[in-house]
Amino acid sequence: MAPKTLTSTAIFFVLLVLLGCSATPTGARVRARQRPCKRMVFYFHDILYNGHNAKNATAAIVGAPAWGNTTILAGQNHFGNVVVFDDPITLDNNLHSHVVGRAQGFYLYDKKDIFTAWLGFSFVFNSTEHKGSINFAGADPLMNKTRDISVIGGTGEFFMARGVATLMTDALEGDVYFRLRADIKLYECW
Amino acid sequence: MAPKTLTSTAIFFVLLVLLGCSATPTGARVRARQRPCKRMVFYFHDILYNGHNAKNATAAIVGAPAWGNTTILAGQNHFGNVVVFDDPITLDNNLHSHVVGRAQGFYLYDKKDIFTAWLGFSFVFNSTEHKGSINFAGADPLMNKTRDISVIGGTGEFFMARGVATLMTDALEGDVYFRLRADIKLYECW
Amino acid sequence: MAPKTLTSTAIFFVLLVLLGCSATPTGARVRARQRPCKRMVFYFHDILYNGHNAKNATAAIVGAPAWGNTTILAGQNHFGNVVVFDDPITLDNNLHSHVVGRAQGFYLYDKKDIFTAWLGFSFVFNSTEHKGSINFAGADPLMNKTRDISVIGGTGEFFMARGVATLMTDALEGDVYFRLRADIKLYECW
Repeated sequence: MAPKTLTSTAIFFVLLVLLGCSATPTGARVRARQRPCKRMVFYFHDILYNGHNAKNATAAIVGAPAWGNTTILAGQNHFGNVVVFDDPITLDNNLHSHVVGRAQGFYLYDKKDIFTAWLGFSFVFNSTEHKGSINFAGADPLMNKTRDISVIGGTGEFFMARGVATLMTDALEGDVYFRLRADIKLYECW
Repeated sequence: MAPKTLTSTAIFFVLLVLLGCSATPTGARVRARQRPCKRMVFYFHDILYNGHNAKNATAAIVGAPAWGNTTILAGQNHFGNVVVFDDPITLDNNLHSHVVGRAQGFYLYDKKDIFTAWLGFSFVFNSTEHKGSINFAGADPLMNKTRDISVIGGTGEFFMARGVATLMTDALEGDVYFRLRADIKLYECW
Repeated sequence: MAPKTLTSTAIFFVLLVLLGCSATPTGARVRARQRPCKRMVFYFHDILYNGHNAKNATAAIVGAPAWGNTTILAGQNHFGNVVVFDDPITLDNNLHSHVVGRAQGFYLYDKKDIFTAWLGFSFVFNSTEHKGSINFAGADPLMNKTRDISVIGGTGEFFMARGVATLMTDALEGDVYFRLRADIKLYECW
């Protein structure tokens, strides 16, 4: 009987091993979408320099197409304008709330017939709330109510992070002020 | 005899477990290159604004070095020119084919003695073929017949994608039109 | 006795399987920080064009805010300046050492009240030492002695790489020359 039992045990363990490791085969990993391992919501506030608000501005036009300049956003839906920013990050939608970090990087408007942008930036934290950075990149079709960009990496507390951030325009005041809500969902946490 | 058999079984399973999970040890993952979990080929078409083609242009110079301007690509292999683009994506190499998405972002020429570029852009899809975005970044030594850039993330249908895209210049007409073939190989699919 | 031994063996293997695979559950991966699978140290050398050093310059200002220009770095801690570069990479801190690759991409200064930058670039290798590219992105608060940016991907020898690079300003000569030490730690190696 013992050999028979051993055989069953063997089969049992083979199944166990296959089951236990099936989520990460040696080959390509195919994974179902799942709950984020970390989720955080922030707001950031962009005040674009327009020639009259040097003191308060957190962003400036630094690139423009031949038909534009660096003081006023260009025609054709700002196509070709490149903006560098250093925006305060808050936990709620109030510009004057406690600043927990800075959103730093650039966006550029990249379509002639509709407003749409491309973003490369970081959330940089060095506060009691968070220490470290989260790096983002991706297309921002900003006329959509919500849109997703990629979390492409992180450092410190967010070491090696990967995920998706859902952006929403929370406020928009002319060409000078806008506020974005970023719902960050990390799916790789180390 | 039974204990002996048990011992062999034990060794057998230890080996099995080590084998089954060796691809993903608790520590650093070292993986062999393998077949992509998803592969797609697209073409995108870039028509650079040159002062005379405002209607057709899909791209514009928005940054230039001190010795250049934003209408004509600069000398020294365009070193320092930054171009923003919104290029149509097609399934074959015909500019007039059905557009399945847009390639949006920027490239910059970054070498004085040879043509070479750096790219940050997305493929943005919202068609019957695909819905979602793929984000790319990397060096594009465009004098090479083929060159690889990184897929750094994705959203929607391409949620959390990672991989490599092999670019090939499929056509080049002066400084105004070029067409790239992108062979996208995803090695992480969720 | 045999059944009892079998039971213990069974429990032993269940534990083994759980242990061996626990690092990569089917759900979100939560991993401890661990030793890099690859570590490399390089230096790169940036000589910024200032109107008088066209021959030696490896970098040029290509974007500037309304209050700046593309020959001299702008006031307010260079806020808004965008620089494109093609810098030699060496294995030690000597500008005249054997060049093993090129650091190519851009940085932009993105804060008014302190020097800080955002980087998007690649290490491009095609030498006996290395063949392939490593892509980087992230915030560079350059007044800090060391700061981490993300390795967001790689090609060739560095296929699918992910990790962190610790940057250190190794030398700084006015606004014209700086040398960065990059300590690259890859945590995902394929």
